[in-house]
Amino acid sequence: MKKIIIDTLGGDSFDNIMQGTVMAAQVNPDIGFILIGERGRIWPHLMAGAITSRCEIIECVESISNDEPPTVVKNRSNSSIHIGLKMLKEGCDHTKEHEYIAFISAGSTGAVLAGAVLMIGRIPGVLRPALCPLLPSPDPKKRTMIIDVGANMDCKPEYLLGFAKMGSVYMKSIGVKNPRIGLVNVGTEDKKGNELTTATFALLKESDLNFVGNMEANDAFTGKFDVIVCDGFVGNILLKGAEGAFKLLGTKLRETLTSSFKAKIGAVLVKKKFENMRKELGADTVGGSIFIGTKKPVVKAHGSSSPFAFYNAILTGINAGRSDLTKLLEKEFAEK
Amino acid sequence: MKKIIIDTLGGDSFDNIMQGTVMAAQVNPDIGFILIGERGRIWPHLMAGAITSRCEIIECVESISNDEPPTVVKNRSNSSIHIGLKMLKEGCDHTKEHEYIAFISAGSTGAVLAGAVLMIGRIPGVLRPALCPLLPSPDPKKRTMIIDVGANMDCKPEYLLGFAKMGSVYMKSIGVKNPRIGLVNVGTEDKKGNELTTATFALLKESDLNFVGNMEANDAFTGKFDVIVCDGFVGNILLKGAEGAFKLLGTKLRETLTSSFKAKIGAVLVKKKFENMRKELGADTVGGSIFIGTKKPVVKAHGSSSPFAFYNAILTGINAGRSDLTKLLEKEFAEK
Repeated sequence: MKKIIIDTLGGDSFDNIMQGTVMAAQVNPDIGFILIGERGRIWPHLMAGAITSRCEIIECVESISNDEPPTVVKNRSNSSIHIGLKMLKEGCDHTKEHEYIAFISAGSTGAVLAGAVLMIGRIPGVLRPALCPLLPSPDPKKRTMIIDVGANMDCKPEYLLGFAKMGSVYMKSIGVKNPRIGLVNVGTEDKKGNELTTATFALLKESDLNFVGNMEANDAFTGKFDVIVCDGFVGNILLKGAEGAFKLLGTKLRETLTSSFKAKIGAVLVKKKFENMRKELGADTVGGSIFIGTKKPVVKAHGSSSPFAFYNAILTGINAGRSDLTKLLEKEFAEK
Repeated sequence: MKKIIIDTLGGDSFDNIMQGTVMAAQVNPDIGFILIGERGRIWPHLMAGAITSRCEIIECVESISNDEPPTVVKNRSNSSIHIGLKMLKEGCDHTKEHEYIAFISAGSTGAVLAGAVLMIGRIPGVLRPALCPLLPSPDPKKRTMIIDVGANMDCKPEYLLGFAKMGSVYMKSIGVKNPRIGLVNVGTEDKKGNELTTATFALLKESDLNFVGNMEANDAFTGKFDVIVCDGFVGNILLKGAEGAFKLLGTKLRETLTSSFKAKIGAVLVKKKFENMRKELGADTVGGSIFIGTKKPVVKAHGSSSPFAFYNAILTGINAGRSDLTKLLEKEFAEK
């Protein structure tokens, strides 16, 4: 049986994590769930969801906070992230009947990523693993992967070429044929950009990837690309800048819809539709960010994940396990 | 008389430029206007606006397209951008009675910036001039300057220190006391970021600026900072990423508001309010991006400027002239 490992101690809400987990278990009857956390609090959720038979609990009360240096994870052997990553590294239980396919945590991003690199290690040929969420587009069924959004600060062109390869393999694994790759830049012309993008452009052009060319950051949300590549600093800025813009527009929208009697009536009529829109565009459906390039994938869910968001993060992990993402990546990076 | 120089040949719409110009002239009766372009097309607008007495026209039919290399501006002595910048460099007419305070163009960004640096030159002590629009915030009266958004790709920490100084001087010149400076980064902790931001952090910390610290890109739109500093590559990504997010949300909003009969009725009721919101947040009120650090300021209006957007771009130029921005910058950079 393929099993997924879940950190129930990370993030802001234990209840959201458990609700997401129960939903994910109910729709994936062939997957086993290993829950790291407090038995007394976890058990009632499993009972209520009628999923006790496929779940096991690893008792743990220690978590790593966002304020601690990420590398403490290596020596904090009683922390939920350490325990989860150690199991994932081992890869299966002692009977070898049960394979551990992914680890999901809403805890400290730094600790999860540092732990994944230090404890699980990289796939041979991968220079730098990367963190890569899927961005929304006008078409609800289309997502654009942005790789990297913060795991790698100062990058070399070779790292970005690796990100493009990993992103391409990932998008193929979720059904996208011949993924279109874009390089995040300040203009679409070939010669645009800084030293890093100019050198990366040349590498991508030479590669056998479906490299479309340079792109501007606004095209991150148009669905024109399947994978957009950048260093982790730039990716973080793009993602957070867009989040800030969404949030400002949301605030203004609420103000607008309560600013007059007429607008209030209008607001009542559009409320339901707005809710759906918010859901479609929001972090909820993005399902966390997968960290790829390590020997087993790790999914980082948002600290403030709703039940549905955590559910989606788990599905991301399950899909990676089902499609054997690690094998696909090993193949891509061994061939070259 | 202080005079402003306007390129009527740049941008997508001559009529929008002329309408914006007429509005700006009508509310600034003490400012003169020099219009570069086709007399036959310009004159009717000046007549209709009853502003002929303070306007003069420099006949010109040649513009520089976005596809040409920006540096051609230096030798294209019949082009509108070249003519405007040459006049701005001269600084006044032969009688010395009329001072030229700024040049406004909606034409090729590259040509405008390259021309400004090559033809007008830098203020002594300024390492790199920078392009800096004002971002919206929840409070309609508060704006955050982002500096730089694309004039400088690969930057040194010293350049970013200079951007912070210029931004601080600018915000003071428009009435902000003790402007709060933020460094665009991937987290708020002191040690976060890449090589550039780590080194820049140290310089800003030592400076006598009101440096608040590192900030995340979503805080670009919260009004928590008056000036946010980054290299031109990162600034461009932040700005365009946010634009993309706004646009996606706008598309979804339209879809949502026409997706059912009930929603359509709601839409009619909130339409007017939405229009106002769009105006408040949009490029319209931002008024173009000022390029500062050259001996005279240049304002780059968006190529697709509406009349109101171009009007605001002109006001930005006029304000820079009224507050003697160049002198303030010279003082700041001479002192150090």
